[in-house]
Formats: sequence, C-alpha cells, structure tokens
Amino acid sequence: MAAVLAVDAGGTSTRAVLVDVDGHCLGFGRAGGGNPISSGTERAASAIVTAAHAATDRAGLTASDVGPAILAMAGSGVNPDAAWIRDALAAAGFAGHVELRSDLLATFFAGTFEPDGYALVAGTGAAGIRVRNGVVDLTADGLGWLIGDVGSGFWIGHRVVRDAVAALDGRAAPTALTSLLLDALAIRASTALSADGRPVAVNQVTDAVYRLRPVELARFAPLAFAAPGDETARAILADAAEALARLFGAVASPELTGPLVLGGSILAQDSMVADAVTAAAAASGLVSHTQPVEDGVVGAAVLALRSAGIAVDVVIFERITRSLAALR
Amino acid sequence: MAAVLAVDAGGTSTRAVLVDVDGHCLGFGRAGGGNPISSGTERAASAIVTAAHAATDRAGLTASDVGPAILAMAGSGVNPDAAWIRDALAAAGFAGHVELRSDLLATFFAGTFEPDGYALVAGTGAAGIRVRNGVVDLTADGLGWLIGDVGSGFWIGHRVVRDAVAALDGRAAPTALTSLLLDALAIRASTALSADGRPVAVNQVTDAVYRLRPVELARFAPLAFAAPGDETARAILADAAEALARLFGAVASPELTGPLVLGGSILAQDSMVADAVTAAAAASGLVSHTQPVEDGVVGAAVLALRSAGIAVDVVIFERITRSLAALR
Repeated sequence: MAAVLAVDAGGTSTRAVLVDVDGHCLGFGRAGGGNPISSGTERAASAIVTAAHAATDRAGLTASDVGPAILAMAGSGVNPDAAWIRDALAAAGFAGHVELRSDLLATFFAGTFEPDGYALVAGTGAAGIRVRNGVVDLTADGLGWLIGDVGSGFWIGHRVVRDAVAALDGRAAPTALTSLLLDALAIRASTALSADGRPVAVNQVTDAVYRLRPVELARFAPLAFAAPGDETARAILADAAEALARLFGAVASPELTGPLVLGGSILAQDSMVADAVTAAAAASGLVSHTQPVEDGVVGAAVLALRSAGIAVDVVIFERITRSLAALR
Repeated sequence: MAAVLAVDAGGTSTRAVLVDVDGHCLGFGRAGGGNPISSGTERAASAIVTAAHAATDRAGLTASDVGPAILAMAGSGVNPDAAWIRDALAAAGFAGHVELRSDLLATFFAGTFEPDGYALVAGTGAAGIRVRNGVVDLTADGLGWLIGDVGSGFWIGHRVVRDAVAALDGRAAPTALTSLLLDALAIRASTALSADGRPVAVNQVTDAVYRLRPVELARFAPLAFAAPGDETARAILADAAEALARLFGAVASPELTGPLVLGGSILAQDSMVADAVTAAAAASGLVSHTQPVEDGVVGAAVLALRSAGIAVDVVIFERITRSLAALR
C-alpha cells in the first residue's frame, strides 16, 4: 500500500487526496458534487471515483496501489451504509476498505491535529460540533433550510430577499438591498402597479425567486455583505452572528478547551460575522485559538491516517497541509 | 334569470351561492379545493362545478336558470384567464358569463357593502388590500411562504417548529412549544444522542417535518396559541401581530377612511394577534369599524350583484348575510 485515499465529498464539489503514512500528499483531484443526498448515489459515486482517479493519476499511481478509503460527507452519521460507494470504488479498482465520516469532523481536522475542540461551519447550511478524543461528542443545528441552518448562507440570503421585498412592498423601511436584489435578478425598478394592485417589481421578484429551489436563495447572501452602512443589511448580519454565537454556545462545554475551527464561506472569510463569532467564542474562555479552513480535505486525510492507526501529530499535520497546498 | 352564481374558491374548500337581484340567497353548496394554482385546473374546475350544482339543487333550480357567475380566487389578478372554468361550467349547463375576482376583495365585501376601506387576511398566507370605489387600489404581501406571508398561519407554525427545535438543540432557552410539538408529531421526549451527536428527538422532528410540504407547517400555528405564559410563544405571536400591523400600514392611506375587514383563522377569531392588529389599525384613525368574517362567500355574492349592475346597499347586504346564514 503506497497511500490511503481521503475524500471530502461536498454538495457542489468533491476533493480527493492520496496521502502516505508519513503525511505526504502524493496526488490531488477534484470532481463535481459527491453527496448522495443532494446528487443521488449514482452521480455522487461517479464524482467520487472521478476525483479518486484524478488524484491517483496525479500521484503516478494506479488504483491497486491505494489502501483504505475515508470519505467525509454530510449525513454520514445518520446513513452510515457505504455499500453504494464501496461497490463503485471497487469496480474502479480501489479495493481497500471504505468508511464514511462526518463532514463536520473533517472540517475540524482540516484546522487542527488536536483531539479536542470545536468546529462551526456556515456555508449554504450551518452546524456546530464539539469534538472529544477525536470523535463527534455533540452536534447542534445542521437541520436544513426549512427548520434550521440559522446564520448560514441560505439563512442570510433568505432574509435579504424577504427584507428587500418587504421594503418594495411598503412593509419595511427602504434598504439598499432592494436595488441590489433587483440588479441580481435583472429586474428594472419601477413604481408601476400591476392588475392585482402590487408593484410590478414585487411580482417579478416573486416569480423569479419561486423558480429557484429554496436552498438556492443562498446565492443572495453576498448582497448583505455588499451594502455597508445599510441598516437592514447590518441587522441581518448581526442576527446571523448572534445565531452562530448561540450555536457555539450550544456545543460548548466548560470541561472542554481546544481550538475552534471555522468553515464555510460565511465564517472562513474575513467578515463582521466571522469577527463577531470569533470574539464571542473567545469570550467563553474555552477556545485556545481560532483557525479558518478552506474545506475539509486536509481533515479527511487526517481521519484516513487516524483510521489506519497513525497518530497524527503536529509534524505529520503540517506535512499534510504543506504538501497538499503544493498540489492544489 | 332567477339568480347569479357567486363562488368563493379557496385552496382547501369551495363555497357557492345562488343569489337573486334583491340579495336573497336561494341555495348554497360546498366542495373541495377550487384554486387552480394549488389543485390544478382540472380538480379546481370539478370542485367549482360540484359546489355550483349543490347550490342549484338546494335552490330547487337547474343550471339553465342561473345567470352570470363571479368566481373569487387567489391569483386571479395576475392570471385573469377564465377559459378553464368557463368551459367546465358551460359543459355543466351554466352558460352565463364567467368572471374571476380577487379573493381578497371578496373577503372585504364579506364584511361590508361600503366601497372604500381595508381588508387584512391571515390564514395559511397573509395579505392586505386597500379598496377604493369597490376595486383593489393596493395590495401588500400575499407573496407566499418562501418570501412573504409574514404573520400568517404558515409563518407562525414555521416559527413554532424552528423555536421548538432550537430549544431541543440547546440553541435557545427551553419553551413549552417543544413538548407541544413532540406531542403533535407523536415523538417521545428523550435525552439520548444519536450516532451523529444530536438528540434523537431532533432527528425525529427533522425527518417528520421535511416529509411535509412547507405550507403544511401552518398546522403547528395553533400551538403558539396553546402555550399561555410561555415567553417564546408570546414573542412569536407579538412578532406576528407587529408584522400584520405593518401590513395594515403598507396599505393604509391618510386619504381613505373605511371599515377594516379581518379574514383568515389568525385574524377572524379572538386572539391576542387579532386584538393587537385591531388596536394598531384603530390608532391610525383611518378605520371606521372592524369586522371579522368567516370566509369570502358573502363578498363573492356582493361582487356578483355589483357586476350585474346592482347597487348593493345596507338593506341588500344584510339580506345576503341573513339569508346565507340560514342556508349554511
């Protein structure tokens, strides 16, 4: 066995890395969405196999050189059955043992080798975990757009649309978000009323937004960050930050101190939301340091080595991080 | 022509009444959902024809005795094409002229014969109108569960589920809504954690709620009214009342004084929401009196008579109301 296979299978893209027992990343590959819940098992399996092949080719290896595989993906905790992807990888020549792991745990280990700490992720969705002895001890939120994901990209984008339309509709004070939303939807601002007594633009926004799948409202989250000085946008981001701070509070334990890893576009980039959440978490006294991460692929590699019985220390962790960065 | 046909075609039920030119209701009938957007044109047409036949039978008339038909339904303002129902009614022997009208305007005229005033409806959805000279002058909200309907039954039920789950998840203070929601879903309260580190009950609620169509979350709105003294429930209802007061503000004009008609289960029944909205509207000085209504069928009858050129005054209006009440 030359290397283990580690895969970070997300809803929109999949990343695969081959890593040897010393933490050297030998090959890296990408493909489309690899989550079976959002893409279906057939397309998800195809994406994972494509990414694994790309990583293997890049390493100058063949599938038969590759040992066990660890696949990090959302929903693995409640649906641990890996037959759909084990069979697809085996058919492609990857005959090693296959196990699924939590995408949230992969995010955590993308930022640290320490076995105890916290991760908060706010991308399209939002979730938090407490990690103890290298496994998920407690999870909060991550409950999807309809009943949870508070403070996520969906949640912010949804508020942007609702607040922009409320202003257009006369139910709320004017906001810069309205013109940003109309621009994003290529709708012309107009004061004309349609036959049902509504502003024409309100009906146009309504028609356009209901053509999207609800989660696609996450695409409007950046508008909240693009309206500095606007009171409505500021309130949305302040509410998101407060919700994500509460999310940290839900997983925080006075008995567990460690790093806080921040993932997802809302938290891993500099923003007033990330700053406020970092400050709130620091004030708890439970966070040794905060580490933003781009995705979970380093963490998938850490999980793959840990699963192979290798103790990932600071030397191996930094080797994974550096050698992977050189491959990307 | 013995009578005109007036139909109030809602998403879950349809009501038809035959009314003569003096306002005597001669027959009344009911059927299932008659809105083409929620039921499809075929089922909606079938429900409307069934209700019309029932009303005609009750009146001891036949379809050929019936003159023009006025059908009140949501979405008629943006989709005024009546061919789908004109053809179905003609095939059933109702050969009179057919016109669609706003369901919101029918709600207004269910509560008053005056040509100027306001209506607020909060059932599954929420919308407000200003009526001037008997037609809709301005509409606000009514934009559906995803981007509007603020303060509606869906909106309240959605908040109930979100807040109950947040409490169960450790992101919010405990609330009586949690046990009410678990009872409503027949889920047993438990502190056990599932494999993904979440309370088992959180995953059970999530599975149950995502099996519903989003609008069905309106079924949990009554829980907010069933938890007196609970701070979370009180905040939900206070926010709903504030949103509906803002909805009134969006359609209110300092130049137009008249009755405020309240429709839909959230506003037409006694509740702290209805009380607060009534008080806020009264404080505007633009409301002569407030009138709750059960549905829009009286208003459809008023619209049918107005459409036939009959001036509906207080005598005719009270005759419609009384004679219809005797038939229900």
